[in-house]
Amino acid sequence: MKKQEKVPDARALLAANVLKHRMQLGVSQEKLAEMAGFHRTYVSQVERRVANATTDNVQKLADVLSVPVAQLFEVPSED
Amino acid sequence: MKKQEKVPDARALLAANVLKHRMQLGVSQEKLAEMAGFHRTYVSQVERRVANATTDNVQKLADVLSVPVAQLFEVPSED
Repeated sequence: MKKQEKVPDARALLAANVLKHRMQLGVSQEKLAEMAGFHRTYVSQVERRVANATTDNVQKLADVLSVPVAQLFEVPSED
Repeated sequence: MKKQEKVPDARALLAANVLKHRMQLGVSQEKLAEMAGFHRTYVSQVERRVANATTDNVQKLADVLSVPVAQLFEVPSED
């Protein structure tokens, strides 16, 4: 019986979506971190699922990526 | 110039959606906290926007409320 047939967990979704939208924006992890007022390595930590981002920090990421917060937790489409 | 014409911030969205889905489930704040493995007062703190919930804790809330994580950050419908 496999337990993990549902969607990826929230950290994985956040990581994939931050990466996707950051690529669309065409900026580095360090640049996005600077834009959001984070430590230089924080976006890297989020994209590697190391950071357990708080609601307020997800809001900041959504703001600089210009997407609604909910979109950062959606299952990424294949585009 | 009003700055806040966009959607409510992430804490407010999370608070409203946790409340909405908790009501649909028909459980108290304390009961939901127990179900998710939180301190007795944590759901109350989330619903009052006091807690700055982490991604992992939002995942736990989504799990016990049986909704995708993204749904906890969507603008609540009027139903």
